[in-house]
Amino acid sequence: MQRNLITIADLTTDEILVFFRETKHFKKLRETELRKYRTRLRGRRLLLLFLEPSTRTRVSFQVAGKNLGMDVVTVTASESSVVKGESLVDCALTFSALGFHVAVLRHSELNATKTFASYFDGSVINGGEGTNSHPTQALLDAFTLWERGLLHSDLRVGICGDIGMSRVARCNARLLNRFGVVPYFIAPPELLPSFMHRNGEIVDVPGEAGFQAQIAYSLDDVIKSLDVLMMLRMQRERREGGAKVPIEAFIQNFQLNPARLQKLPPSSLIMHPGPVNRGVEVTDQVFADPRCAISEQVQNGVLMRMSLLGHLLK
Amino acid sequence: MQRNLITIADLTTDEILVFFRETKHFKKLRETELRKYRTRLRGRRLLLLFLEPSTRTRVSFQVAGKNLGMDVVTVTASESSVVKGESLVDCALTFSALGFHVAVLRHSELNATKTFASYFDGSVINGGEGTNSHPTQALLDAFTLWERGLLHSDLRVGICGDIGMSRVARCNARLLNRFGVVPYFIAPPELLPSFMHRNGEIVDVPGEAGFQAQIAYSLDDVIKSLDVLMMLRMQRERREGGAKVPIEAFIQNFQLNPARLQKLPPSSLIMHPGPVNRGVEVTDQVFADPRCAISEQVQNGVLMRMSLLGHLLK
Amino acid sequence: MQRNLITIADLTTDEILVFFRETKHFKKLRETELRKYRTRLRGRRLLLLFLEPSTRTRVSFQVAGKNLGMDVVTVTASESSVVKGESLVDCALTFSALGFHVAVLRHSELNATKTFASYFDGSVINGGEGTNSHPTQALLDAFTLWERGLLHSDLRVGICGDIGMSRVARCNARLLNRFGVVPYFIAPPELLPSFMHRNGEIVDVPGEAGFQAQIAYSLDDVIKSLDVLMMLRMQRERREGGAKVPIEAFIQNFQLNPARLQKLPPSSLIMHPGPVNRGVEVTDQVFADPRCAISEQVQNGVLMRMSLLGHLLK
Repeated sequence: MQRNLITIADLTTDEILVFFRETKHFKKLRETELRKYRTRLRGRRLLLLFLEPSTRTRVSFQVAGKNLGMDVVTVTASESSVVKGESLVDCALTFSALGFHVAVLRHSELNATKTFASYFDGSVINGGEGTNSHPTQALLDAFTLWERGLLHSDLRVGICGDIGMSRVARCNARLLNRFGVVPYFIAPPELLPSFMHRNGEIVDVPGEAGFQAQIAYSLDDVIKSLDVLMMLRMQRERREGGAKVPIEAFIQNFQLNPARLQKLPPSSLIMHPGPVNRGVEVTDQVFADPRCAISEQVQNGVLMRMSLLGHLLK
Repeated sequence: MQRNLITIADLTTDEILVFFRETKHFKKLRETELRKYRTRLRGRRLLLLFLEPSTRTRVSFQVAGKNLGMDVVTVTASESSVVKGESLVDCALTFSALGFHVAVLRHSELNATKTFASYFDGSVINGGEGTNSHPTQALLDAFTLWERGLLHSDLRVGICGDIGMSRVARCNARLLNRFGVVPYFIAPPELLPSFMHRNGEIVDVPGEAGFQAQIAYSLDDVIKSLDVLMMLRMQRERREGGAKVPIEAFIQNFQLNPARLQKLPPSSLIMHPGPVNRGVEVTDQVFADPRCAISEQVQNGVLMRMSLLGHLLK
Repeated sequence: MQRNLITIADLTTDEILVFFRETKHFKKLRETELRKYRTRLRGRRLLLLFLEPSTRTRVSFQVAGKNLGMDVVTVTASESSVVKGESLVDCALTFSALGFHVAVLRHSELNATKTFASYFDGSVINGGEGTNSHPTQALLDAFTLWERGLLHSDLRVGICGDIGMSRVARCNARLLNRFGVVPYFIAPPELLPSFMHRNGEIVDVPGEAGFQAQIAYSLDDVIKSLDVLMMLRMQRERREGGAKVPIEAFIQNFQLNPARLQKLPPSSLIMHPGPVNRGVEVTDQVFADPRCAISEQVQNGVLMRMSLLGHLLK
């Protein structure tokens, strides 16, 4: 495979399926059997350079790396010499010279991972970038579907919430498209970027980082037809000057609550990339619902990342 | 034993004595012998979720976990997605799904550990909660007494300082009560909670989290009778709007200084859970005094926590 | 050797040469051979107490410690109980009792390392202190010269930039002096401390922490004669109230840019302790220049620190 995972386009569909099969294999192992993999990457050095706050993805990589015997070093914005004005290019040169074999980068800016990778000798994994890309999240989400035999072109997926700010939405669309699925992007117009304006319209962003999605202004219009409903949190910290949509209106029309849980087909799957904001996009009942796969997504994430690290360093 | 250590009530007296004996065993080992325990919990995952600042307790658990071969992951408030508004319940679900076997939680709110434990599959250890509870500190303090043969009902213990804000005071009282000891809580009325108001009175808080202590407004009145004097720092960061007691008055009446070191019986023990504020509750002479067990408490803490982790995962 | 590395004076020249030879040995090893050293200090505990921001030095020690099998614990100012007002003395007592064998301290105050070391049972390494001392940086810089056969009394070294704030400049001067080299300190008078005032003058600071350097107000006057040019960043975060020198004037007269790269002899070496501020003291062309050893310095730093840790714990 490619040396880096910057976008979904870096992976062939065959490679993705290799990850899926290995992740499934890991999942079947008992804890004691999984521990045998602790020598697989013994002594290889994994850098987690998280320049935006993160718990889930960061700790998931930390656990995945340690499960494979790697030495894991975490650097976050608050403690790093980014305060001394060093650029991303120089960060990459420095960490490369420090001997890291893999770097996972989370960054607020578009193309940060690509820039970093150009100056880093080892492999670079995009750990979430700007509002555009978060490929390991998309991979673990797609695995969660694939494992259930759902990842085929008939699947109807709705991704609902703060689409405009969501790298998860875009990145999931790209990966779903690969398997013939065009997901709904469900949001009020105010939470959609300007190029996704019309209800019912199919957005078709061209190019390598492009994707197709179908816009839906109303969750209630489509919820009954969904096999998968992926809820997203309102990213208020990215929306300077406060949310564009009054939170009450969002809750009224898009919150997954008991009434909407009733409308969602019994065989559907409820997903959420986390962190969740209970009382906003979801209510407590979601977590007790047997269709809820949120914790399973997290669990799958560790195993999927183990597989990814193993293949990057093969 | 119970799956979690949330309060001292989770432990039987027999279990406590098992910890004490094992801690004493660890203490006798040479460094090279202690290293043999590095395979005992190899590959088990320990989460240190410290949502309040801490060095001593956090690093103590980190060392204890690594001494047993655990993979240790630290998450502090500044770097975590708590900034994204995720609740404690969802933190617990996430870290559970990430595969941690044990979580140590430090949190400012009462009952945070219990809430977290309800949603976490592994074992949860209270690493300091609100102004109420800090059971591993109480255990290491009690071990320090037990090791010297002091932990019996005749022991006279004084806990002096910012009682109102001190989880250490309350938690030590609970554990001391278990062994028939009712400690003095020594403080000016302004540093006592409203239900601990009268000098000389025995406070008797009922229930599982309850405790007995005897209030003393004056250190000088009781210092000559004490076998153990445990000093506490003024927790100014918890006292919004500044300390309720002028620091000068506190120093005048409660500081352990050369004059009071003279009054303290020669066979007494001086303790402090740290961090210390030299020049406030203690002066430099305390640290040079042969009765001072402050560093030994820290050393005991690592070994006690090793024992605790071993038993929780047995 | 001495128990601590606080200043260059703690090392004999013979000991320095032992480090150099071992560092060179490490550098020749393939990654798989280097991994054999992972048992050398297995189970020894390394504390990285970084009370000022740092990436390079901190991560370098982290990697070096892990390469030797050490348990590494990092404590930074933001997460530590320094916020609770604990002093450096009490930090040292606490971390000593927690069982660390080596502590690396970075601190803003002069003599912090010495104070810490007086109360710490294990070895202490100065990881950068005030504006005065940073011995492991000086060692890795000197190794970079020694490895090329350059470290002899004929060598002409220029250290250029914010000399006044630079512990690297002072510490490198001390180590270079040991090998008979008196470096140039190249800076405008405003970036020099008051005792380094006159152009052309040899500054001779006496005593153990003393050093000799020759002052040069103009880079252009000396650049043609240099075998080594070490550029320093403007430490704006230390210069309260903003830089004393307008940045434009500094760039005009001291920036290493294409014009000055032309003047620098072809066989010279360009160094920088990092972090770099591109566009200020250096331009992009520096990094593409075959004379640039900046990344190599970083690489050497890990190996030099491995050697140091090994010898401190022998």
